[in-house]
Amino acid sequence: MFTGLSAFPLTPLDDTGAIDERALQLLVTRLAEAGVHSIGALGSTGSYAYLTRAERARVARLAVGAAGGVPVMIGIGAVRTEHVIEHAHDAQQAGAAAVMLAPVSYQPLTDDEVYGLYADVTAELSVPLCVYDNPGTTRFAFSDALHARVAGLAGVAAIKLPGDGAAERTGALRPLVPASVAIGVSGDQFAAGALDAGADVWFSVVGGLFPELALAIVREGGPASARLEPLWALFRRYGGLRVVATAASLLGLAGARNLPRPLRLLDGDARTEVEAVLRGLG
Amino acid sequence: MFTGLSAFPLTPLDDTGAIDERALQLLVTRLAEAGVHSIGALGSTGSYAYLTRAERARVARLAVGAAGGVPVMIGIGAVRTEHVIEHAHDAQQAGAAAVMLAPVSYQPLTDDEVYGLYADVTAELSVPLCVYDNPGTTRFAFSDALHARVAGLAGVAAIKLPGDGAAERTGALRPLVPASVAIGVSGDQFAAGALDAGADVWFSVVGGLFPELALAIVREGGPASARLEPLWALFRRYGGLRVVATAASLLGLAGARNLPRPLRLLDGDARTEVEAVLRGLG
Repeated sequence: MFTGLSAFPLTPLDDTGAIDERALQLLVTRLAEAGVHSIGALGSTGSYAYLTRAERARVARLAVGAAGGVPVMIGIGAVRTEHVIEHAHDAQQAGAAAVMLAPVSYQPLTDDEVYGLYADVTAELSVPLCVYDNPGTTRFAFSDALHARVAGLAGVAAIKLPGDGAAERTGALRPLVPASVAIGVSGDQFAAGALDAGADVWFSVVGGLFPELALAIVREGGPASARLEPLWALFRRYGGLRVVATAASLLGLAGARNLPRPLRLLDGDARTEVEAVLRGLG
Repeated sequence: MFTGLSAFPLTPLDDTGAIDERALQLLVTRLAEAGVHSIGALGSTGSYAYLTRAERARVARLAVGAAGGVPVMIGIGAVRTEHVIEHAHDAQQAGAAAVMLAPVSYQPLTDDEVYGLYADVTAELSVPLCVYDNPGTTRFAFSDALHARVAGLAGVAAIKLPGDGAAERTGALRPLVPASVAIGVSGDQFAAGALDAGADVWFSVVGGLFPELALAIVREGGPASARLEPLWALFRRYGGLRVVATAASLLGLAGARNLPRPLRLLDGDARTEVEAVLRGLG
Protein backbone atom coordinates (compact mmCIF):
# COMPACT_ATOMS: atom_id res chain seq x y z
CA MET A 1 0.00 0.00 0.00
CA PHE A 2 3.00 2.33 0.29
CA THR A 3 2.95 3.79 -3.20
CA GLY A 4 1.51 6.82 -4.95
CA LEU A 5 -0.78 9.10 -2.99
CA SER A 6 -1.67 8.40 0.62
CA ALA A 7 -4.29 11.01 1.50
CA PHE A 8 -4.68 12.22 5.09
CA PRO A 9 -8.16 13.49 5.95
CA LEU A 10 -9.11 15.73 8.85
CA THR A 11 -11.04 14.27 11.76
CA PRO A 12 -13.62 17.07 11.91
CA LEU A 13 -15.24 17.91 15.22
CA ASP A 14 -18.70 19.38 15.56
CA ASP A 15 -19.49 22.51 17.55
CA THR A 16 -19.77 20.51 20.78
CA GLY A 17 -16.28 19.01 20.38
CA ALA A 18 -17.55 15.54 19.43
CA ILE A 19 -16.41 13.69 16.29
CA ASP A 20 -18.47 14.91 13.33
CA GLU A 21 -19.06 11.39 12.03
CA ARG A 22 -20.98 12.34 8.89
CA ALA A 23 -18.35 14.89 7.86
CA LEU A 24 -15.59 12.35 8.45
CA GLN A 25 -17.33 9.69 6.40
CA LEU A 26 -17.93 12.13 3.57
CA LEU A 27 -14.27 13.22 3.54
CA VAL A 28 -13.09 9.61 3.37
CA THR A 29 -15.63 8.65 0.71
CA ARG A 30 -14.48 11.56 -1.47
CA LEU A 31 -10.91 10.28 -1.26
CA ALA A 32 -11.85 6.75 -2.24
CA GLU A 33 -13.95 8.00 -5.15
CA ALA A 34 -11.09 10.23 -6.37
CA GLY A 35 -8.84 7.19 -6.64
CA VAL A 36 -6.20 7.81 -4.00
CA HIS A 37 -3.92 4.83 -3.44
CA SER A 38 -4.36 4.74 0.31
CA ILE A 39 -5.85 6.75 3.15
CA GLY A 40 -4.08 7.81 6.34
CA ALA A 41 -6.71 8.34 9.00
CA LEU A 42 -5.74 9.71 12.40
CA GLY A 43 -2.56 11.27 11.11
CA SER A 44 -1.43 14.63 12.41
CA THR A 45 -4.05 16.08 10.05
CA GLY A 46 -6.56 13.75 11.68
CA SER A 47 -5.73 15.13 15.15
CA TYR A 48 -4.97 11.72 16.62
CA ALA A 49 -2.98 13.19 19.50
CA TYR A 50 -6.03 15.08 20.80
CA LEU A 51 -8.55 12.24 20.89
CA THR A 52 -9.43 9.67 23.51
CA ARG A 53 -8.94 5.96 22.95
CA ALA A 54 -12.68 5.51 22.33
CA GLU A 55 -12.77 8.38 19.85
CA ARG A 56 -9.77 7.00 17.99
CA ALA A 57 -11.23 3.49 17.81
CA ARG A 58 -14.47 4.93 16.47
CA VAL A 59 -12.70 7.05 13.83
CA ALA A 60 -10.71 4.02 12.71
CA ARG A 61 -13.89 1.99 12.22
CA LEU A 62 -15.65 4.81 10.40
CA ALA A 63 -12.68 5.47 8.12
CA VAL A 64 -12.24 1.83 7.13
CA GLY A 65 -15.99 1.56 6.54
CA ALA A 66 -16.12 4.64 4.32
CA ALA A 67 -12.96 3.80 2.36
CA GLY A 68 -14.71 1.22 0.20
CA GLY A 69 -11.76 -1.14 0.05
CA VAL A 70 -9.02 1.47 -0.32
CA PRO A 71 -6.38 0.49 2.25
CA VAL A 72 -6.45 2.60 5.40
CA MET A 73 -3.46 3.32 7.63
CA ILE A 74 -4.22 4.43 11.20
CA GLY A 75 -2.04 6.63 13.40
CA ILE A 76 -1.39 4.97 16.76
CA GLY A 77 1.01 7.42 18.42
CA ALA A 78 0.88 8.41 22.09
CA VAL A 79 3.45 9.48 24.65
CA ARG A 80 3.17 6.20 26.55
CA THR A 81 4.06 2.82 25.05
CA GLU A 82 1.15 1.00 26.70
CA HIS A 83 -1.31 3.42 25.12
CA VAL A 84 0.32 3.03 21.70
CA ILE A 85 -0.20 -0.71 21.94
CA GLU A 86 -3.86 -0.22 22.89
CA HIS A 87 -4.34 2.02 19.84
CA ALA A 88 -2.62 -0.58 17.66
CA HIS A 89 -5.01 -3.30 18.81
CA ASP A 90 -8.00 -1.02 18.21
CA ALA A 91 -6.74 -0.13 14.71
CA GLN A 92 -6.27 -3.77 13.81
CA GLN A 93 -9.74 -4.61 15.12
CA ALA A 94 -11.12 -1.84 12.93
CA GLY A 95 -9.57 -3.37 9.83
CA ALA A 96 -6.55 -1.12 9.35
CA ALA A 97 -4.21 -2.24 6.57
CA ALA A 98 -1.27 -0.61 8.35
CA VAL A 99 -0.46 1.57 11.34
CA MET A 100 1.68 4.67 11.62
CA LEU A 101 3.72 5.59 14.67
CA ALA A 102 5.57 8.80 15.53
CA PRO A 103 7.73 8.98 18.66
CA VAL A 104 5.38 11.45 20.33
CA SER A 105 7.07 12.83 23.39
CA TYR A 106 6.66 14.94 26.48
CA GLN A 107 10.07 14.34 28.00
CA PRO A 108 12.56 14.50 25.12
CA LEU A 109 13.44 10.92 24.17
CA THR A 110 16.82 9.28 23.68
CA ASP A 111 17.61 7.14 20.64
CA ASP A 112 17.50 4.00 22.76
CA GLU A 113 14.08 4.92 24.13
CA VAL A 114 12.74 5.48 20.61
CA TYR A 115 14.18 2.20 19.39
CA GLY A 116 12.66 0.49 22.42
CA LEU A 117 9.26 2.00 21.60
CA TYR A 118 9.30 0.61 18.06
CA ALA A 119 10.60 -2.75 19.26
CA ASP A 120 7.89 -3.04 21.91
CA VAL A 121 5.11 -2.03 19.51
CA THR A 122 6.12 -4.07 16.46
CA ALA A 123 6.29 -7.14 18.71
CA GLU A 124 2.53 -6.76 19.23
CA LEU A 125 1.47 -6.05 15.64
CA SER A 126 -0.02 -8.18 12.90
CA VAL A 127 -0.13 -5.39 10.27
CA PRO A 128 2.78 -3.40 8.81
CA LEU A 129 4.03 -0.26 10.54
CA CYS A 130 5.08 3.04 9.04
CA VAL A 131 7.71 4.95 11.03
CA TYR A 132 6.47 8.53 11.23
CA ASP A 133 9.37 10.96 11.40
CA ASN A 134 7.86 14.36 12.19
CA PRO A 135 10.17 16.58 14.23
CA GLY A 136 7.72 19.47 13.90
CA THR A 137 5.28 17.75 16.24
CA THR A 138 7.42 15.21 18.12
CA ARG A 139 10.57 17.35 18.36
CA PHE A 140 12.53 14.12 17.98
CA ALA A 141 15.22 14.08 15.29
CA PHE A 142 15.91 10.66 13.76
CA SER A 143 19.51 10.14 12.69
CA ASP A 144 20.10 8.05 9.58
CA ALA A 145 21.61 5.41 11.84
CA LEU A 146 18.50 5.24 14.03
CA HIS A 147 16.25 5.01 10.96
CA ALA A 148 18.34 2.07 9.76
CA ARG A 149 18.15 0.38 13.16
CA VAL A 150 14.37 0.80 13.48
CA ALA A 151 13.76 -0.18 9.83
CA GLY A 152 15.44 -3.48 10.57
CA LEU A 153 12.67 -4.48 13.00
CA ALA A 154 10.27 -7.11 11.68
CA GLY A 155 7.01 -5.38 10.81
CA VAL A 156 8.44 -2.05 9.73
CA ALA A 157 7.29 -1.49 6.14
CA ALA A 158 7.70 2.24 5.50
CA ILE A 159 9.23 5.49 6.68
CA LYS A 160 7.39 8.80 6.44
CA LEU A 161 9.98 11.58 6.19
CA PRO A 162 9.44 15.26 6.90
CA GLY A 163 9.23 17.31 3.72
CA ASP A 164 12.13 19.69 4.18
CA GLY A 165 15.17 17.91 2.76
CA ALA A 166 13.19 14.77 1.92
CA ALA A 167 14.63 14.46 -1.60
CA GLU A 168 18.19 14.23 -0.25
CA ARG A 169 17.17 12.13 2.73
CA THR A 170 15.42 9.59 0.52
CA GLY A 171 18.67 9.02 -1.33
CA ALA A 172 20.70 8.83 1.87
CA LEU A 173 18.41 6.29 3.54
CA ARG A 174 17.78 4.00 0.58
CA PRO A 175 21.00 1.99 0.95
CA LEU A 176 20.66 1.89 4.74
CA VAL A 177 17.22 0.28 5.05
CA PRO A 178 15.91 -3.09 3.82
CA ALA A 179 14.67 -3.04 0.20
CA SER A 180 11.21 -4.02 1.51
CA VAL A 181 10.88 -0.74 3.41
CA ALA A 182 9.17 2.01 1.41
CA ILE A 183 10.39 5.57 1.81
CA GLY A 184 7.77 8.28 1.69
CA VAL A 185 7.53 11.98 2.11
CA SER A 186 5.18 14.38 3.84
CA GLY A 187 5.36 18.17 3.65
CA ASP A 188 3.20 18.74 0.62
CA GLN A 189 5.23 21.48 -1.00
CA PHE A 190 8.28 19.18 -1.14
CA ALA A 191 6.44 16.15 -2.50
CA ALA A 192 7.06 16.62 -6.21
CA GLY A 193 10.81 16.93 -5.62
CA ALA A 194 10.93 13.91 -3.34
CA LEU A 195 8.91 11.73 -5.72
CA ASP A 196 11.31 12.79 -8.49
CA ALA A 197 14.19 11.75 -6.25
CA GLY A 198 12.73 8.28 -5.87
CA ALA A 199 10.38 8.45 -2.89
CA ASP A 200 7.81 5.64 -3.12
CA VAL A 201 4.81 7.39 -1.63
CA TRP A 202 3.53 10.82 -0.68
CA PHE A 203 1.68 11.13 2.61
CA SER A 204 -0.38 14.19 1.87
CA VAL A 205 -2.31 16.77 3.88
CA VAL A 206 -3.61 18.59 0.81
CA GLY A 207 -4.54 15.22 -0.68
CA GLY A 208 -6.93 14.67 2.21
CA LEU A 209 -9.10 17.59 1.09
CA PHE A 210 -8.17 18.09 -2.59
CA PRO A 211 -7.35 14.60 -3.85
CA GLU A 212 -7.53 15.57 -7.54
CA LEU A 213 -4.95 18.32 -7.08
CA ALA A 214 -2.65 15.91 -5.26
CA LEU A 215 -3.11 13.14 -7.84
CA ALA A 216 -2.11 15.65 -10.52
CA ILE A 217 1.16 16.24 -8.65
CA VAL A 218 1.79 12.49 -8.48
CA ARG A 219 1.23 12.27 -12.27
CA GLU A 220 2.84 15.51 -13.45
CA GLY A 221 5.33 16.44 -10.72
CA GLY A 222 6.83 19.91 -10.38
CA PRO A 223 4.57 21.94 -12.68
CA ALA A 224 1.40 20.73 -10.95
CA SER A 225 2.98 21.50 -7.58
CA ALA A 226 4.08 24.98 -8.71
CA ARG A 227 0.48 25.85 -9.50
CA LEU A 228 -0.32 25.36 -5.81
CA GLU A 229 2.38 27.77 -4.60
CA PRO A 230 -0.23 30.19 -3.14
CA LEU A 231 -1.45 27.28 -0.99
CA TRP A 232 2.07 26.28 0.05
CA ALA A 233 2.68 29.90 1.10
CA LEU A 234 -0.33 29.66 3.44
CA PHE A 235 0.91 26.30 4.78
CA ARG A 236 4.30 27.84 5.60
CA ARG A 237 2.69 30.82 7.30
CA TYR A 238 -0.14 29.24 9.29
CA GLY A 239 0.60 25.50 9.35
CA GLY A 240 -1.04 23.05 6.97
CA LEU A 241 -3.59 21.81 9.50
CA ARG A 242 -5.10 25.23 10.24
CA VAL A 243 -5.25 26.05 6.53
CA VAL A 244 -6.91 22.78 5.55
CA ALA A 245 -9.34 22.91 8.47
CA THR A 246 -10.31 26.46 7.52
CA ALA A 247 -10.67 25.48 3.87
CA ALA A 248 -12.87 22.53 4.81
CA SER A 249 -15.10 24.86 6.78
CA LEU A 250 -15.27 27.40 3.94
CA LEU A 251 -16.22 24.60 1.54
CA GLY A 252 -18.98 23.32 3.82
CA LEU A 253 -17.18 19.99 4.34
CA ALA A 254 -16.65 20.57 8.06
CA GLY A 255 -17.96 22.87 10.73
CA ALA A 256 -16.69 26.24 11.92
CA ARG A 257 -14.95 24.75 14.99
CA ASN A 258 -13.71 21.51 13.50
CA LEU A 259 -10.30 21.47 15.25
CA PRO A 260 -9.77 20.38 18.87
CA ARG A 261 -9.21 23.33 21.21
CA PRO A 262 -6.80 25.00 21.92
CA LEU A 263 -6.25 24.79 18.15
CA ARG A 264 -8.32 27.29 16.25
CA LEU A 265 -9.30 27.80 12.67
CA LEU A 266 -7.91 30.88 10.97
CA ASP A 267 -9.98 34.02 11.23
CA GLY A 268 -9.85 37.63 10.09
CA ASP A 269 -7.34 38.39 7.38
CA ALA A 270 -5.91 34.88 7.40
CA ARG A 271 -9.31 33.38 6.66
CA THR A 272 -9.78 35.89 3.85
CA GLU A 273 -6.44 34.80 2.39
CA VAL A 274 -7.57 31.17 2.43
CA GLU A 275 -10.80 32.16 0.69
CA ALA A 276 -8.86 34.00 -2.00
CA VAL A 277 -6.55 31.04 -2.61
CA LEU A 278 -9.52 28.66 -2.83
CA ARG A 279 -11.12 30.92 -5.45
CA GLY A 280 -7.83 30.95 -7.36
CA LEU A 281 -7.76 27.14 -7.36
CA GLY A 282 -11.30 27.03 -8.68
CA MET B 1 1.43 28.84 48.84
CA PHE B 2 3.83 30.21 46.22
CA THR B 3 6.86 30.81 48.42
CA GLY B 4 9.97 28.91 49.44
CA LEU B 5 10.37 25.32 48.32
CA SER B 6 7.71 23.59 46.24
CA ALA B 7 8.85 19.97 45.99
CA PHE B 8 7.89 17.84 43.00
CA PRO B 9 7.77 14.10 43.71
CA LEU B 10 7.90 11.30 41.17
CA THR B 11 4.76 9.31 40.44
CA PRO B 12 6.45 5.92 40.68
CA LEU B 13 5.08 3.02 38.66
CA ASP B 14 5.37 -0.61 39.68
CA ASP B 15 6.77 -3.35 37.46
CA THR B 16 3.35 -3.84 35.81
CA GLY B 17 3.08 -0.16 34.83
CA ALA B 18 0.44 0.64 37.47
CA ILE B 19 0.79 3.49 39.95
CA ASP B 20 2.91 2.34 42.89
CA GLU B 21 0.57 3.84 45.46
CA ARG B 22 2.60 2.97 48.55
CA ALA B 23 5.79 4.40 47.06
CA LEU B 24 3.95 7.59 46.07
CA GLN B 25 2.46 8.03 49.51
CA LEU B 26 5.85 7.48 51.14
CA LEU B 27 7.53 10.04 48.88
CA VAL B 28 4.88 12.64 49.67
CA THR B 29 4.94 11.93 53.40
CA ARG B 30 8.73 12.36 53.44
CA LEU B 31 8.31 15.81 51.88
CA ALA B 32 5.70 16.92 54.37
CA GLU B 33 7.83 15.69 57.28
CA ALA B 34 10.89 17.52 55.93
CA GLY B 35 8.99 20.79 56.06
CA VAL B 36 8.69 21.75 52.40
CA HIS B 37 6.42 24.74 51.83
CA SER B 38 4.27 23.08 49.20
CA ILE B 39 4.15 19.95 47.06
CA GLY B 40 3.73 19.81 43.29
CA ALA B 41 2.22 16.44 42.43
CA LEU B 42 1.78 15.44 38.80
CA GLY B 43 4.39 17.84 37.57
CA SER B 44 6.74 16.84 34.78
CA THR B 45 8.62 14.90 37.46
CA GLY B 46 5.31 13.26 38.34
CA SER B 47 4.82 12.09 34.73
CA TYR B 48 1.38 13.68 34.40
CA ALA B 49 1.50 13.66 30.62
CA TYR B 50 1.75 9.85 30.52
CA LEU B 51 -1.17 8.98 32.79
CA THR B 52 -4.86 8.43 32.15
CA ARG B 53 -7.51 10.65 33.66
CA ALA B 54 -8.34 7.99 36.23
CA GLU B 55 -4.69 7.54 37.18
CA ARG B 56 -4.25 11.28 37.55
CA ALA B 57 -7.34 11.68 39.71
CA ARG B 58 -6.13 8.85 41.92
CA VAL B 59 -2.63 10.34 42.28
CA ALA B 60 -4.13 13.72 43.18
CA ARG B 61 -6.22 12.15 45.95
CA LEU B 62 -3.30 10.11 47.29
CA ALA B 63 -0.95 13.10 47.26
CA VAL B 64 -3.35 15.39 49.09
CA GLY B 65 -4.05 12.63 51.60
CA ALA B 66 -0.37 11.97 52.29
CA ALA B 67 0.63 15.64 52.45
CA GLY B 68 -0.75 16.11 55.96
CA GLY B 69 -2.01 19.63 55.36
CA VAL B 70 0.92 20.89 53.30
CA PRO B 71 -0.67 22.57 50.27
CA VAL B 72 -0.59 20.46 47.12
CA MET B 73 -0.55 21.81 43.58
CA ILE B 74 -1.64 19.43 40.81
CA GLY B 75 -0.52 19.47 37.18
CA ILE B 76 -3.51 19.53 34.84
CA GLY B 77 -1.85 19.84 31.41
CA ALA B 78 -2.99 17.99 28.30
CA VAL B 79 -2.90 18.73 24.59
CA ARG B 80 -6.66 19.26 24.45
CA THR B 81 -8.49 22.00 26.35
CA GLU B 82 -11.47 19.80 27.24
CA HIS B 83 -9.17 17.28 28.89
CA VAL B 84 -7.34 20.02 30.81
CA ILE B 85 -10.67 21.14 32.24
CA GLU B 86 -11.52 17.55 33.24
CA HIS B 87 -8.19 17.27 35.05
CA ALA B 88 -8.85 20.63 36.75
CA HIS B 89 -12.19 19.42 38.10
CA ASP B 90 -10.62 16.17 39.31
CA ALA B 91 -7.79 18.07 41.04
CA GLN B 92 -10.22 20.38 42.80
CA GLN B 93 -12.34 17.40 43.90
CA ALA B 94 -9.18 15.83 45.32
CA GLY B 95 -8.49 18.89 47.45
CA ALA B 96 -5.75 20.58 45.45
CA ALA B 97 -4.74 24.01 46.77
CA ALA B 98 -3.70 25.07 43.26
CA VAL B 99 -3.29 23.71 39.76
CA MET B 100 -0.43 24.04 37.31
CA LEU B 101 -0.85 24.23 33.54
CA ALA B 102 1.74 24.05 30.77
CA PRO B 103 0.72 24.62 27.16
CA VAL B 104 1.39 21.02 26.22
CA SER B 105 1.30 20.71 22.47
CA TYR B 106 1.33 18.35 19.55
CA GLN B 107 0.76 20.89 16.80
CA PRO B 108 2.92 23.90 17.67
CA LEU B 109 0.63 26.53 19.22
CA THR B 110 0.23 30.20 18.43
CA ASP B 111 0.24 32.88 21.12
CA ASP B 112 -3.49 33.40 20.66
CA GLU B 113 -4.18 29.69 21.07
CA VAL B 114 -2.15 29.59 24.29
CA TYR B 115 -3.92 32.66 25.65
CA GLY B 116 -7.24 31.06 24.71
CA LEU B 117 -6.27 27.89 26.58
CA TYR B 118 -5.56 29.79 29.79
CA ALA B 119 -8.69 31.91 29.39
CA ASP B 120 -10.89 28.84 28.86
CA VAL B 121 -9.37 26.96 31.81
CA THR B 122 -9.25 29.78 34.36
CA ALA B 123 -12.93 30.45 33.63
CA GLU B 124 -13.68 26.99 35.07
CA LEU B 125 -11.43 27.10 38.12
CA SER B 126 -12.08 27.78 41.79
CA VAL B 127 -8.41 27.41 42.89
CA PRO B 128 -5.40 29.48 41.79
CA LEU B 129 -3.45 28.51 38.69
CA CYS B 130 0.29 28.48 38.11
CA VAL B 131 1.37 29.10 34.52
CA TYR B 132 3.96 26.45 33.74
CA ASP B 133 6.51 27.72 31.22
CA ASN B 134 8.59 24.71 30.19
CA PRO B 135 9.83 24.92 26.60
CA GLY B 136 11.88 21.75 27.12
CA THR B 137 8.73 19.65 27.18
CA THR B 138 6.09 21.84 25.52
CA ARG B 139 8.39 23.43 22.92
CA PHE B 140 6.34 26.59 23.34
CA ALA B 141 8.27 29.80 24.04
CA PHE B 142 6.39 32.41 26.08
CA SER B 143 7.28 35.99 25.20
CA ASP B 144 7.30 38.49 28.06
CA ALA B 145 4.24 40.10 26.45
CA LEU B 146 2.30 36.82 26.46
CA HIS B 147 3.25 36.15 30.09
CA ALA B 148 1.90 39.60 30.96
CA ARG B 149 -1.33 38.95 29.04
CA VAL B 150 -1.94 35.53 30.62
CA ALA B 151 -0.97 36.77 34.10
CA GLY B 152 -3.75 39.33 33.84
CA LEU B 153 -6.41 36.61 33.76
CA ALA B 154 -8.39 36.24 36.97
CA GLY B 155 -7.20 33.10 38.73
CA VAL B 156 -3.58 33.22 37.63
CA ALA B 157 -1.48 33.31 40.81
CA ALA B 158 2.02 32.25 39.77
CA ILE B 159 4.42 31.68 36.90
CA LYS B 160 6.89 28.81 36.86
CA LEU B 161 9.86 29.82 34.70
CA PRO B 162 12.42 27.51 33.13
CA GLY B 163 15.74 27.58 34.95
CA ASP B 164 18.07 28.78 32.24
CA GLY B 165 17.99 32.58 32.37
CA ALA B 166 15.42 32.63 35.18
CA ALA B 167 17.29 35.21 37.28
CA GLU B 168 17.15 37.78 34.44
CA ARG B 169 13.63 36.76 33.42
CA THR B 170 12.32 37.23 36.96
CA GLY B 171 13.50 40.83 36.89
CA ALA B 172 12.10 41.43 33.43
CA LEU B 173 8.65 40.04 34.24
CA ARG B 174 8.16 41.58 37.67
CA PRO B 175 7.00 45.00 36.40
CA LEU B 176 4.85 43.37 33.69
CA VAL B 177 2.64 41.14 35.83
CA PRO B 178 0.24 41.96 38.68
CA ALA B 179 1.87 42.21 42.10
CA SER B 180 -0.33 39.32 43.24
CA VAL B 181 1.34 36.93 40.77
CA ALA B 182 4.29 35.03 42.24
CA ILE B 183 7.27 34.36 40.01
CA GLY B 184 9.02 31.06 40.52
CA VAL B 185 11.81 29.09 38.99
CA SER B 186 12.40 25.49 38.03
CA GLY B 187 15.67 24.06 36.73
CA ASP B 188 17.27 23.10 40.01
CA GLN B 189 20.82 24.17 39.22
CA PHE B 190 19.62 27.73 38.56
CA ALA B 191 17.44 28.03 41.65
CA ALA B 192 19.90 29.67 44.03
CA GLY B 193 20.63 32.42 41.50
CA ALA B 194 16.97 33.02 40.75
CA LEU B 195 15.99 33.15 44.43
CA ASP B 196 18.82 35.65 44.94
CA ALA B 197 17.38 37.68 42.06
CA GLY B 198 14.02 37.85 43.77
CA ALA B 199 12.10 34.77 42.64
CA ASP B 200 9.37 33.96 45.16
CA VAL B 201 9.41 30.20 44.95
CA TRP B 202 11.48 27.29 43.69
CA PHE B 203 9.62 24.45 41.98
CA SER B 204 12.11 21.68 42.53
CA VAL B 205 12.78 18.25 41.08
CA VAL B 206 15.61 17.48 43.48
CA GLY B 207 13.42 18.72 46.33
CA GLY B 208 10.95 15.93 45.53
CA LEU B 209 13.50 13.29 46.50
CA PHE B 210 16.02 15.14 48.69
CA PRO B 211 13.98 17.81 50.47
CA GLU B 212 16.66 18.55 53.08
CA LEU B 213 19.25 19.33 50.40
CA ALA B 214 16.78 21.63 48.65
CA LEU B 215 15.74 23.37 51.86
CA ALA B 216 19.44 24.07 52.53
CA ILE B 217 19.64 25.83 49.15
CA VAL B 218 16.57 27.94 50.02
CA ARG B 219 18.25 28.91 53.32
CA GLU B 220 21.89 29.26 52.25
CA GLY B 221 21.73 29.92 48.50
CA GLY B 222 24.74 29.53 46.21
CA PRO B 223 27.16 27.61 48.46
CA ALA B 224 24.58 24.90 49.20
CA SER B 225 23.79 24.66 45.49
CA ALA B 226 27.48 24.46 44.56
CA ARG B 227 27.85 21.37 46.77
CA LEU B 228 25.36 19.62 44.47
CA GLU B 229 27.29 20.36 41.28
CA PRO B 230 27.96 16.64 40.64
CA LEU B 231 24.19 16.12 40.65
CA TRP B 232 23.57 19.09 38.35
CA ALA B 233 26.12 17.64 35.94
CA LEU B 234 24.08 14.42 35.79
CA PHE B 235 20.87 16.43 35.30
CA ARG B 236 22.41 18.26 32.34
CA ARG B 237 23.65 15.03 30.82
CA TYR B 238 20.71 12.68 31.30
CA GLY B 239 17.74 14.88 32.18
CA GLY B 240 16.61 15.45 35.77
CA LEU B 241 13.74 12.98 35.59
CA ARG B 242 15.86 9.98 34.60
CA VAL B 243 18.46 10.83 37.25
CA VAL B 244 15.91 11.24 40.04
CA ALA B 245 13.98 8.11 39.00
CA THR B 246 17.21 6.11 38.98
CA ALA B 247 18.24 7.55 42.35
CA ALA B 248 14.84 6.68 43.82
CA SER B 249 15.27 3.12 42.65
CA LEU B 250 18.82 2.89 44.02
CA LEU B 251 17.57 4.19 47.39
CA GLY B 252 14.72 1.67 47.50
CA LEU B 253 12.09 4.40 47.37
CA ALA B 254 10.73 3.28 44.00
CA GLY B 255 10.96 0.21 41.77
CA ALA B 256 13.38 -0.64 39.01
CA ARG B 257 10.91 0.34 36.25
CA ASN B 258 9.28 3.31 37.92
CA LEU B 259 9.04 5.53 34.78
CA PRO B 260 6.37 5.14 32.08
CA ARG B 261 7.70 3.49 28.92
CA PRO B 262 9.20 4.50 26.53
CA LEU B 263 11.13 6.39 29.23
CA ARG B 264 13.75 4.28 30.90
CA LEU B 265 15.83 4.52 34.01
CA LEU B 266 19.55 4.94 33.49
CA ASP B 267 21.59 1.77 33.26
CA GLY B 268 25.19 0.72 32.79
CA ASP B 269 27.78 3.44 33.31
CA ALA B 270 25.15 6.13 33.79
CA ARG B 271 23.59 4.23 36.67
CA THR B 272 27.03 3.76 38.20
CA GLU B 273 27.59 7.52 37.96
CA VAL B 274 24.34 8.15 39.82
CA GLU B 275 25.39 5.66 42.51
CA ALA B 276 28.71 7.45 42.92
CA VAL B 277 27.07 10.86 43.24
CA LEU B 278 24.60 9.52 45.80
CA ARG B 279 27.50 8.16 47.86
CA GLY B 280 29.20 11.56 47.62
CA LEU B 281 26.07 13.27 48.93
CA GLY B 282 25.92 10.86 51.84
